[in-house]
Amino acid sequence: MRLIEAFERLPGIGPKTAQRLTFYLLHNPQSELDKFSEALKNLKRDTKECEICFNVAESSPCSICLDRERDQTKICVVEQALDILAIERGGFYQGLYHVLGGSISPLNNVGPEELKIRELIDRLKTGRVKELILATNPNMEGEATAMYIAKQANRFPEIKITRIGRGLPIGADLEYADEATLNRAFEGRREM
Amino acid sequence: MRLIEAFERLPGIGPKTAQRLTFYLLHNPQSELDKFSEALKNLKRDTKECEICFNVAESSPCSICLDRERDQTKICVVEQALDILAIERGGFYQGLYHVLGGSISPLNNVGPEELKIRELIDRLKTGRVKELILATNPNMEGEATAMYIAKQANRFPEIKITRIGRGLPIGADLEYADEATLNRAFEGRREM
Repeated sequence: MRLIEAFERLPGIGPKTAQRLTFYLLHNPQSELDKFSEALKNLKRDTKECEICFNVAESSPCSICLDRERDQTKICVVEQALDILAIERGGFYQGLYHVLGGSISPLNNVGPEELKIRELIDRLKTGRVKELILATNPNMEGEATAMYIAKQANRFPEIKITRIGRGLPIGADLEYADEATLNRAFEGRREM
Repeated sequence: MRLIEAFERLPGIGPKTAQRLTFYLLHNPQSELDKFSEALKNLKRDTKECEICFNVAESSPCSICLDRERDQTKICVVEQALDILAIERGGFYQGLYHVLGGSISPLNNVGPEELKIRELIDRLKTGRVKELILATNPNMEGEATAMYIAKQANRFPEIKITRIGRGLPIGADLEYADEATLNRAFEGRREM
């Protein structure tokens, strides 16, 4: 069936899951299928890229950039919009964001110009920002990107540049941690 | 976003997967989204219940019932259409099917009349069937349903009634098998 094939094309969905989802939907009312179908068709139409932070949202500027309650002195730099959702789930961060659209990766021909770094620097020029939190992924590309941005942002001496902590994830087992993570965890140790 | 919510309503898809799928689709061409959307909207319209075996298919009778190459002397009885897909994946069975639409379950008010058992008996009356393979699930309801059907089909002495084997799944670890499965595996032991 065509729907099974459509589901199978999604990442992480194998043939069995695709069948299970399709048969599940078969027992849903047509009105539910229509709603799902409309949401799919209008996905791109209903989705904007925020002109300020490049977050994926229903409006531009996005609701986070427009929220006056949020701390306008902090910008958290992430690689992609999905990362914002992950951080927002935590509810511990009340500042703004900036989506780079990837990370510097010479192997994939992605240089700094391909990312929204110039736009980030422009935001820093307003003088409102007091802290720039670099939350790119803790892998080679993410670290290189963080390093590049830190260097660029150094010309604003009033802005504190921070990098998210790296170490053992909460709930992890030391026994199974990889060397690089353990190394970082030791480097990042704090006095108790 | 509405699409995230639609995905979240599917079984086995949590909020994080729903977000991941939505952001993945955002980078798909609109034509792909339209195809997916159409398949969803037309799911029920494009899906028929086979008038012979009650399989879910694109036509009625279904392609299996219409396939003259298949062994017309065997009927495999399953609880639901998804079970047919699982068996067909194996490619070891070349006979016909019969979908009951569930199993006898007094707790859920499902009696034999709610299932396609009368229709199965009607198919047996044609005299073409030589073996009836009862492939209902190996749980209490499935066993009760198999037993009930076996009793009903007993009046056709020319039909061999068989039940799928129960025991340890291939690749399983004896150490972790539950008692009931181990018990069945011992009962079902064969001479080597």
